[in-house]
Amino acid sequence: MTVRIGIDIGGTQLRVAALDEKCNILKRTAFPNVHSAGPEENLGRLVDAIEGWGLDYEGIGIGCPGPLDFEKGQILTPPNLPGWEGFPVADFFRRRCDHPCHLNNDANVAGLAEALVGAGRNFSSVVYITVSTGVGAAYVQDGKIVGGAHSLATEVFNMIVCDAPVARPGMNPGALEDQSSGTAIARMASERMGREVTAPAVFALADAGNADALAVIDHAAECLARGVNNINAVVDPDVFVFGGSVALKNPAFLDQVYQKAKGYVLDPDALLFCEATCGEDAGLVGASLLV
Amino acid sequence: MTVRIGIDIGGTQLRVAALDEKCNILKRTAFPNVHSAGPEENLGRLVDAIEGWGLDYEGIGIGCPGPLDFEKGQILTPPNLPGWEGFPVADFFRRRCDHPCHLNNDANVAGLAEALVGAGRNFSSVVYITVSTGVGAAYVQDGKIVGGAHSLATEVFNMIVCDAPVARPGMNPGALEDQSSGTAIARMASERMGREVTAPAVFALADAGNADALAVIDHAAECLARGVNNINAVVDPDVFVFGGSVALKNPAFLDQVYQKAKGYVLDPDALLFCEATCGEDAGLVGASLLV
Repeated sequence: MTVRIGIDIGGTQLRVAALDEKCNILKRTAFPNVHSAGPEENLGRLVDAIEGWGLDYEGIGIGCPGPLDFEKGQILTPPNLPGWEGFPVADFFRRRCDHPCHLNNDANVAGLAEALVGAGRNFSSVVYITVSTGVGAAYVQDGKIVGGAHSLATEVFNMIVCDAPVARPGMNPGALEDQSSGTAIARMASERMGREVTAPAVFALADAGNADALAVIDHAAECLARGVNNINAVVDPDVFVFGGSVALKNPAFLDQVYQKAKGYVLDPDALLFCEATCGEDAGLVGASLLV
Repeated sequence: MTVRIGIDIGGTQLRVAALDEKCNILKRTAFPNVHSAGPEENLGRLVDAIEGWGLDYEGIGIGCPGPLDFEKGQILTPPNLPGWEGFPVADFFRRRCDHPCHLNNDANVAGLAEALVGAGRNFSSVVYITVSTGVGAAYVQDGKIVGGAHSLATEVFNMIVCDAPVARPGMNPGALEDQSSGTAIARMASERMGREVTAPAVFALADAGNADALAVIDHAAECLARGVNNINAVVDPDVFVFGGSVALKNPAFLDQVYQKAKGYVLDPDALLFCEATCGEDAGLVGASLLV
């Protein structure tokens, strides 16, 4: 039996699992990410857990919030991991565990899981789009993540999909994430309604027929449909797999995006949307598949 | 010596050449595309030319205006080739010449030439963008054209880059080609100035300081820069190679696009623009490289 280690580094939690070649989870554990402790101490707990299992394994795959340098296996300037700037994650595990280690960003890793064992498993080219707090994506062609020449492929959050007067920090004016993410939906609705509303509340209000909520969701769907068209116009995948709470908890929204995108792509009959199926463990499964 | 045949099918001209493995042209000829004659008779002249040369060759590569089905080697509904709808180009040459035949669209073929022997030859991932009457593109990764699941990859002409009230036939509202092509530049300037002006005239007027011409060119550059950012946000290539008369004859315009795009991409220092170097023969050279 081939065993691989998958690690999912998050801002609040660090998760590690041992998986077999069919991606069944054999062992798993999780720790809080203690921000006062820094990467060496936090990741050290994962090393202890792996060693405690006493398993014979092939290698370690690690998913981590970006931006990263995949080639160097290094974190760059992650907004959700203060104190981890420039930390050589892959080298750390390579040195401590003496096994091959591979690092990639969390969206790419989740997309790899969906492409190989999830909703995209029967297709050779898969674009994964996750819509939650932000908008992330992955492009998996023939089982391999397309990472780009500078580890910046599928950073589609910053794609420009409409005219917009203001740019928010770290984003272009009219950036996809600034129009279609859960954060954007909450912001646009709050501005329009003159009170703080969360993204789930906006969807609930829209269900109840609230005109402001409906307008905000229509705009978010319109911009996401343009994003789908634009990604499709570059790589023309077999299928788009959608993950993230905004996409998965609101099927009517995803259908709205689908109908609008069909109006934009060159071959509407060829446009295929699926919902992600790997759930919460996509990060661990996809990380193990980096090995 | 390995010899390959390259064929460049255009709306007005049909060109064929025999090239060696270094892409030197050994033999070449061209015929007008006689629209009253249809594909069999027009392409038959190319077969006669190839046979007349009496060379021992490996195979035939064919570049052709789209839309095509690359897998089937078939033309679909080409606007510039009336009467060629559904014509099985690759099968025609396979049957008549008894050699392997490969078909791809003209932008992909020119991009392949630039990626392998032109401006992109020292890079492993190349996005080629041609700006002339229309806007076309190619994405060549590790020496291979990325064609997409339905032969529709890099049909970036239809990418949505701004809000626009009207859609022109065959294009989305705010489509890249409808904002940044030579045709779009002429249209926007003609509307603004109240008289017919050609794209070269708009650039000449801009050079002379005409405010309307400058505004039109600024908008075209802005939208093309957004397109570059959006392509970059999907595939993050090593280099963008620009071809086509609008890009190559107006270096100040291309520089304007570059400066604006640097303001949008995540890593401005990594953004690299080159001008195409294969010239008029890119179609023949690239077609031979399909073999």
